[in-house]
Amino acid sequence: MSQADRILRACRREPVDATPIWLMRQAGRYMAEYRALRKRYSILEIIKTPDLATEVTLQPIEAFNLDAAIIFADILPVLEGMGLLLEFVKGDGPVIHNPLRTAADVETLAVRPAEETLHYTLTAIQQVRQALDGQVALIGFSGAPFTLASYAIEGGSSRNYVRAKSLMYEQPQTWHSLLEKLSSTVGDYLRAQAAAGAQVLQLFDSWVGALSPADYREYVLPHSKRVIEIAKSEQDVPLIHFGTGTSGMLPLLKAAGGDVIGVDWRIDLAEAWTRLGDDVAVQGNLDPVILFAPVSEIKKQAARILDNVKGRPGHIFNLGHGVLQHTPVEHVAALIDFVHEYSARDG
Amino acid sequence: MSQADRILRACRREPVDATPIWLMRQAGRYMAEYRALRKRYSILEIIKTPDLATEVTLQPIEAFNLDAAIIFADILPVLEGMGLLLEFVKGDGPVIHNPLRTAADVETLAVRPAEETLHYTLTAIQQVRQALDGQVALIGFSGAPFTLASYAIEGGSSRNYVRAKSLMYEQPQTWHSLLEKLSSTVGDYLRAQAAAGAQVLQLFDSWVGALSPADYREYVLPHSKRVIEIAKSEQDVPLIHFGTGTSGMLPLLKAAGGDVIGVDWRIDLAEAWTRLGDDVAVQGNLDPVILFAPVSEIKKQAARILDNVKGRPGHIFNLGHGVLQHTPVEHVAALIDFVHEYSARDG
Repeated sequence: MSQADRILRACRREPVDATPIWLMRQAGRYMAEYRALRKRYSILEIIKTPDLATEVTLQPIEAFNLDAAIIFADILPVLEGMGLLLEFVKGDGPVIHNPLRTAADVETLAVRPAEETLHYTLTAIQQVRQALDGQVALIGFSGAPFTLASYAIEGGSSRNYVRAKSLMYEQPQTWHSLLEKLSSTVGDYLRAQAAAGAQVLQLFDSWVGALSPADYREYVLPHSKRVIEIAKSEQDVPLIHFGTGTSGMLPLLKAAGGDVIGVDWRIDLAEAWTRLGDDVAVQGNLDPVILFAPVSEIKKQAARILDNVKGRPGHIFNLGHGVLQHTPVEHVAALIDFVHEYSARDG
Repeated sequence: MSQADRILRACRREPVDATPIWLMRQAGRYMAEYRALRKRYSILEIIKTPDLATEVTLQPIEAFNLDAAIIFADILPVLEGMGLLLEFVKGDGPVIHNPLRTAADVETLAVRPAEETLHYTLTAIQQVRQALDGQVALIGFSGAPFTLASYAIEGGSSRNYVRAKSLMYEQPQTWHSLLEKLSSTVGDYLRAQAAAGAQVLQLFDSWVGALSPADYREYVLPHSKRVIEIAKSEQDVPLIHFGTGTSGMLPLLKAAGGDVIGVDWRIDLAEAWTRLGDDVAVQGNLDPVILFAPVSEIKKQAARILDNVKGRPGHIFNLGHGVLQHTPVEHVAALIDFVHEYSARDG
């Protein structure tokens, strides 16, 4: 069984020889190879230069025994194609210089095909897919409508999402119009990534846990559902639907769609799976901070997760969110090897 | 039925004439009266001057039809009494100038009676209790061991709690020794607040949702349990056990103790209560951002919460976390009156 088969089979809840593993943000600042490249290029330069994006995507594949690569990109460039001015400001994170505040702002947003606006990532996907040669799976991804809307309205990261939620409550028509445009754009982007060679897709609704379940159902669910329908309209590529802080609304994420539901570490994975039901696969759910702990603790915690869902086909091992800066590289290697060895022994 | 009776009965899951309501951070920057006082005094000056703390505690009681006052204080001064150097830096929030990093640091921490270290808050409780004259209930509070430890180790607020969790994983003995000292101190502080006249206590484990359920069980639960046992050792005063991001581990919070479990907005309140069981009361759970919405939306969302738990005695209405800065004062008034009217009509 190739590593690619391992993860593709897990997405379909078929038996595997060992639990597949990849890590959100597995390419990034914790790796010396990446930091070296970042001395010469900005994040956006790397993302927009297919050869550089290909190189960075492959860095963790060369370093670790991962079952999947995830294309090196960011969730925010999709907003540039719609007309927003994006900048990554050192220390402050992403900034949108013309955030959306009114119906007129939303009116001006363009919905354009991904082949026009995000061709660099599609080219990088083609290149990486070729380099991986079918051995390791390639994952494409996009931010989900709520998470993208929160950046577009707030103008950057946010603690309480007061502006985004206020627009949602005060101008629901404007909100839905914005999320429709985002859904069309994001759905098309994911469809194009699958066409370019992505074998699995992940929809990142990273900040959707800021909403109550009732607000998610009313203001977000129909839009995320439409994204997933469009993404799968040409090819039925497996899709991972991920969010953090969603322990109280996992069945709603499933209702929006996805073959795999990504779960953070704030809930026992077996309990999450029981709430979701056996007709969906799960991904998760080690706390990223545990990678700072001694290897013995990392193994103990990974074993607990594997034991909890033992015998239930359809588990992709991952962290509950992205790898953090300063994570020790050798701990990442130890986790990946342990997950394979421990789950193969048990299988 | 006095307003005080209403909330005290709800804590015991007895029938009430209307659902009681108070709001976390109901005294604060969204009120002009408070901002006026803050022009002349720092937060710590207000907290440490019983007459000022009394005045601020009573500001929302005079402005709104609240069923309880909560003593104006902060969770962090308790750390000063243990030997940490606390400062509130404008714009940056709280800073601990000598954060804990080693076993030796923890060794130096003092465990002293609240009457010595936090006498100003105890005096303010006596004064407020007298002023309220039994009509409105008085709530005392403290931060919980995990949340306090996170500030003491990180040296302030934190996004990922890498330092706090790393100490937990790398030096579990030091961690438990720290949490034992915090439990003794916090338990004694809550006991002293009840002795001074607080009729209800709230234990704020605001950031405990950063932990996995397994880590909560191992590293935190026994300490929070001990706090609650000490707090209730002299008088069986009702205790509200509150955290955010806890949708995946509510039964563990209940196992640690509390007559009422405080729930944030990330889970349907009826579902949370079902998971907790009917032998405990619940508090919550409106998203604080909804107070920025039009009054019609506020009423719709408050009615949904009240409808969801209708007929189950033991609900205290509150936000899922504190009132945010810039919240419109008239929306707070509208929410409070609506909760009383709507629940009385239904009762």
